[in-house]
Amino acid sequence: MNTDWLAAPCPSPDAASADAARARQAQLTKPPGSLGALEEVAVQLAALQRAPRPAVERVWISVFAGDHGVAEEGVSAFPQAVTGEMVRNFASGGAAISVLARELGATLEVVNLGTVNDPGEIPGVRRAVVAPCTANFCRAPAMTEAQFAAALEAGAASARAARAAGAQLFVGGEMGIANTTAAAALACALLDAAPAALTGAGTGLDAAGVVHKAAVIARALALHAEAREPREQLRRLGGFEIAALAGAYIAAAQAGLPVLVDGFITTAAALAAARINPGVRGWLLFAHRSHERGHAALLRALDAAPLLDLGLRLGEASGAAAAVPLLRLACALHGGMATFAQAGVSGAADDARGHAA
Amino acid sequence: MNTDWLAAPCPSPDAASADAARARQAQLTKPPGSLGALEEVAVQLAALQRAPRPAVERVWISVFAGDHGVAEEGVSAFPQAVTGEMVRNFASGGAAISVLARELGATLEVVNLGTVNDPGEIPGVRRAVVAPCTANFCRAPAMTEAQFAAALEAGAASARAARAAGAQLFVGGEMGIANTTAAAALACALLDAAPAALTGAGTGLDAAGVVHKAAVIARALALHAEAREPREQLRRLGGFEIAALAGAYIAAAQAGLPVLVDGFITTAAALAAARINPGVRGWLLFAHRSHERGHAALLRALDAAPLLDLGLRLGEASGAAAAVPLLRLACALHGGMATFAQAGVSGAADDARGHAA
Repeated sequence: MNTDWLAAPCPSPDAASADAARARQAQLTKPPGSLGALEEVAVQLAALQRAPRPAVERVWISVFAGDHGVAEEGVSAFPQAVTGEMVRNFASGGAAISVLARELGATLEVVNLGTVNDPGEIPGVRRAVVAPCTANFCRAPAMTEAQFAAALEAGAASARAARAAGAQLFVGGEMGIANTTAAAALACALLDAAPAALTGAGTGLDAAGVVHKAAVIARALALHAEAREPREQLRRLGGFEIAALAGAYIAAAQAGLPVLVDGFITTAAALAAARINPGVRGWLLFAHRSHERGHAALLRALDAAPLLDLGLRLGEASGAAAAVPLLRLACALHGGMATFAQAGVSGAADDARGHAA
Repeated sequence: MNTDWLAAPCPSPDAASADAARARQAQLTKPPGSLGALEEVAVQLAALQRAPRPAVERVWISVFAGDHGVAEEGVSAFPQAVTGEMVRNFASGGAAISVLARELGATLEVVNLGTVNDPGEIPGVRRAVVAPCTANFCRAPAMTEAQFAAALEAGAASARAARAAGAQLFVGGEMGIANTTAAAALACALLDAAPAALTGAGTGLDAAGVVHKAAVIARALALHAEAREPREQLRRLGGFEIAALAGAYIAAAQAGLPVLVDGFITTAAALAAARINPGVRGWLLFAHRSHERGHAALLRALDAAPLLDLGLRLGEASGAAAAVPLLRLACALHGGMATFAQAGVSGAADDARGHAA
């Protein structure tokens, strides 16, 4: 399986649609700029959807699950069996993202890329098993070339399925015990940063646990120091689900499908994707600031200003799902408000703006 | 009309329901605390609704409109006629809050408390006209005792109507040219703060306009310096819609109906309400940080941590409306997620939390 497709160009967001949306915003019955980020996101979606009045009614959420060899280093508060157990929970409707997808009327696709505690065939879960687990990247590259290509392709297949289903927004999520360790290691490599700066508590490590996790990451970075290319950093330090997310983001951007990025792990995948193919960046919207240490640095590197800051640190695309209603309301306001002319409302009095009588 | 009802007690939020909700959150299939503010708000709503699984499906939004005598000092970028024009726009569905209420399936009540450019009887607008306009508070108290009592009562009537309609959440909004001037003056009086610290651009003043507006507020504060009681500060420096909001918040709290506070002006009303009747505070949730200068100080005074920070500065309850989906998702997660036991998912390994093998 080759990965040449990663470099295929992404279309540019449409400047004319953005200009038209901006002009419309200026005519709506409100002081200019008073809807803040809701105005900006409507303009951005107009540019991405090449539509004067964008919409995000049809939302596709893919949650990618995979296990991590580095879990054997004791970097998570939860046992590795939880990855497979949660795949079952996603499908049976009890997980956070299951509830959120239902509330949003979004399509939820669960993709099993390989779990040690394999739940087998489950209705509602797409099996794209690469292997039961990545290699422990403290000892070897996380993925072989073939595994890496398969994981990227599994993600791309989700983005293509979303496009084919008429989705107006692609959301990626993840599940995998130890995957904040993989994401932090990848982030350190991409940003040339020290582990202590980007290593957080994940699902609930205490201070000693975080110190240990950072030391594990430092060993991995030392082993893979010669890997300077983002593609190779992703292969050696990522995970099946992180590679799938990067593949999905690249394929979505190539297909002109806007992406809403979730939290820490997905942002690490997004940065890898944008480093591999810079055309990806323009297709990314950012949902929330995660409570996980390290997310802020990734957001800065992507020049991203997320909509929400709610102290979330769950993953599964839960933060992205929480932001979807804001995108929908932004589109509804943009498309549904009256203009000053339509409503017979007076505009700002130019002479009153400076000092006024 | 007397205002003795303002002092009637508010019920206490139910600690037992909060404890039960907290215990349930700890059993749901996610790392403890990983849903951040969405967990906290579910627990708070459980306490307010005395329900183990709270809900905010039935939302009532009252937008109170009124004109301000201080507009003659030239403190707004928009002409005074806009207040009446916007009342018409609220009712005909073209305003931001009209669109948002529709999207949320919320009840939208528009209350005309008095506008210089009176739109008259309009379907969908409740007329509770106190006078065409408050007095210019640079020269006299904004409201007479009778006007003040009528405005408070009009707000209380909205809260009672919401309760009678079975609303699970009360949202107040406002419209009134020059009402950021009134709210800033009231905030300065309540917080004993200098006008320059709390005066912002409102609908779009430039720097010189803001300086002028602060000077107008300083004159008003000097005139009313002897008013030290919150009730009297609200009467002298508020507006019909600001008094109505305070009356609505107090009546909602007295009726055990949770309130979602919008932005700068509504928070000034909320602070006045909580100073008049301290039992109100426990019934308030806060939606967003407004871009309007002065809001941060009001939020600090109320020890409030709003959900959103989107650079909004429109009013009309638009920021509160934008936060409603988060409350709904918080309730859906709280009520709909599976527990670890139900889903057969393993909990955190206590021995892995410290350092791990």
